[in-house]
Amino acid sequence: MNVDGKTMRPIWLDEKSGTVRIIDQRRLPHELVIMELADVSDAILAIKEMAVRGAPLIGVTAASGVYLAVRRDPGDPNTAARAGRMLKEARPTAVNLAWAVDRMLATLAKKPSGADPIGIARDEVTAIAEEEVENCRNIGEHGLALITAIRERKHNRPVNVLTHCNAGWLACVEYGTATAPVYAAHDRGLPVHVWVDETRPLNQGARLTAWELSKHGVPHTLIADNTGGHLMQHGLVDIVIVGTDRTTCTGDVANKIGTYLKALAARDNEVPFYVALPSSTFDWQLRDGLEEIPVEERDPDEIRFVQGSADGILRRVLVPPQSSPAINYAFDVTPARLVTGFITERGICRATEADIRRLFPEK
Amino acid sequence: MNVDGKTMRPIWLDEKSGTVRIIDQRRLPHELVIMELADVSDAILAIKEMAVRGAPLIGVTAASGVYLAVRRDPGDPNTAARAGRMLKEARPTAVNLAWAVDRMLATLAKKPSGADPIGIARDEVTAIAEEEVENCRNIGEHGLALITAIRERKHNRPVNVLTHCNAGWLACVEYGTATAPVYAAHDRGLPVHVWVDETRPLNQGARLTAWELSKHGVPHTLIADNTGGHLMQHGLVDIVIVGTDRTTCTGDVANKIGTYLKALAARDNEVPFYVALPSSTFDWQLRDGLEEIPVEERDPDEIRFVQGSADGILRRVLVPPQSSPAINYAFDVTPARLVTGFITERGICRATEADIRRLFPEK
Repeated sequence: MNVDGKTMRPIWLDEKSGTVRIIDQRRLPHELVIMELADVSDAILAIKEMAVRGAPLIGVTAASGVYLAVRRDPGDPNTAARAGRMLKEARPTAVNLAWAVDRMLATLAKKPSGADPIGIARDEVTAIAEEEVENCRNIGEHGLALITAIRERKHNRPVNVLTHCNAGWLACVEYGTATAPVYAAHDRGLPVHVWVDETRPLNQGARLTAWELSKHGVPHTLIADNTGGHLMQHGLVDIVIVGTDRTTCTGDVANKIGTYLKALAARDNEVPFYVALPSSTFDWQLRDGLEEIPVEERDPDEIRFVQGSADGILRRVLVPPQSSPAINYAFDVTPARLVTGFITERGICRATEADIRRLFPEK
Repeated sequence: MNVDGKTMRPIWLDEKSGTVRIIDQRRLPHELVIMELADVSDAILAIKEMAVRGAPLIGVTAASGVYLAVRRDPGDPNTAARAGRMLKEARPTAVNLAWAVDRMLATLAKKPSGADPIGIARDEVTAIAEEEVENCRNIGEHGLALITAIRERKHNRPVNVLTHCNAGWLACVEYGTATAPVYAAHDRGLPVHVWVDETRPLNQGARLTAWELSKHGVPHTLIADNTGGHLMQHGLVDIVIVGTDRTTCTGDVANKIGTYLKALAARDNEVPFYVALPSSTFDWQLRDGLEEIPVEERDPDEIRFVQGSADGILRRVLVPPQSSPAINYAFDVTPARLVTGFITERGICRATEADIRRLFPEK
């Protein structure tokens, strides 16, 4: 995607060194810093400490971790499996992590004897990344139809999209999931405007979604997470589109904490609430999101401290009293009954097992 | 209330100088700074820039502003009315502001000829402040019954109260409104625990409610505003209690932005949702909160910048890209249908006009 006239992805293979490069998303929007991942431990740390985040990108980074392990130790047949086990523990909620690791291991297991495991692993990472790009491109095309329909109803006034967290290209490889329909509309000259939830505690909306949209020239307005309900009550939101970290085959959606509150407000105000996802984010084993999806609990200091720029220098400030404890659940689960539909790479479906399986009958 | 062994209120009259003193709440929790209000313009600025905030405290500060104007110019019979007009424009949503100003003007209008207007104004400010204290004490007693009943159902496990923003003693004079039942329970040895919404953008929960509760020794945990829904889904909230800046006689509640989202989550999870208020916060003229209550729009930089302590120094950091715009609605309106009940100084009532008027038949 476009960053100051340069085309960028959040992750890429450095052909010369054979290592992997990522944008360190903890420093955005104030600093654009590129990090090198030279070994699987670098990949694990990047996932754990959220230098990379977002379900599809976590998947590609995990696949890269398996590749980096094989690259470091191609002779040991257990290398990939060992790396895969460690990678899967890096973050518990995102299902793409396990999905990408398992796919790497399956491909390596099938390799003809004598074939170069490094080349096979590298090619599979590339394949996964390119499939994510193609999936997001298709999500954008399918979601575009929703935006076009709203625009026709609104007699050509701009369509107001509300999104939570960052399910943009920074969370994927290109286009994003929730943002893909927005970019598709904007690039075709359809006027769209995005309400960007700042998304406490880590402010992925304020830091990443606002950055992406501003770099691409998409009109947007930053709001406190508390604001979406008020906007919907006053007819200022036409559609909510969010991403997801894991979605059950029955349609329950684990996404950034606070998503559930927006889904409740959308239902109360009859605003359509869509979840955009590649099918790799479906967990085909789980049926009850609230009971079965593990919700990651992160460091309370992510709540207590806020990072930003003070006179051009990145600083962390403590907001509450030093002695006050905090708790930091990273995700919540939005029950299928609150979801209008899913925007997938194969099209749009309702949030029911039957309609999801209609699109993905092979699962 | 107790602050490091010293009894404090957020506003008081300095007997020696005749001026008014307030805690500058913009500096809490990291600095406890006392400000002097010497004239009505100081009072207006303190209200506008939120050195004081919270419906009852805004009322007492506005009354103090009328007193300070009269004190400065006791000879001019138009002083009080002129001051009142300017004070009423300081913040549009809090109804207590207009209520307190009108009460001051009415008292001054009734003064016997020859009586000292300064003394009359000062006595009326004191009367308003003491009535607020008595109201909050009574709100605490009535709310205590709710907490006691939950505790009996829970077989003596701690009662988890969720609150949004600061409707504590810092927002009132003593006890607070939403916190009054919590302090009443805690002081009687009933174990309570408070989930404190940090309350973006100005973080009144993280900065003020957490500070109050920690100074008083009440167990509490700070959470992102996004978290309440998840906690309720998992049975971790027994009751929500919030304050209000203006409530219609039909039961619609204007309170800090984001209150509506918590009310939706409470209904979805069958958690009781109570609003604590002195009757001075009822607006007896309005019938439709969403249509009729003016919602203040504040400086977008309150969203874009976050204030906190860095190495002991108060600093503001910029979170989003410099170029990204923001919008800052300070309040939202929770419709009466989502409110379980009101906790007032006269007792508890349902959020219907009939039941509100049953408690306040003279209105």
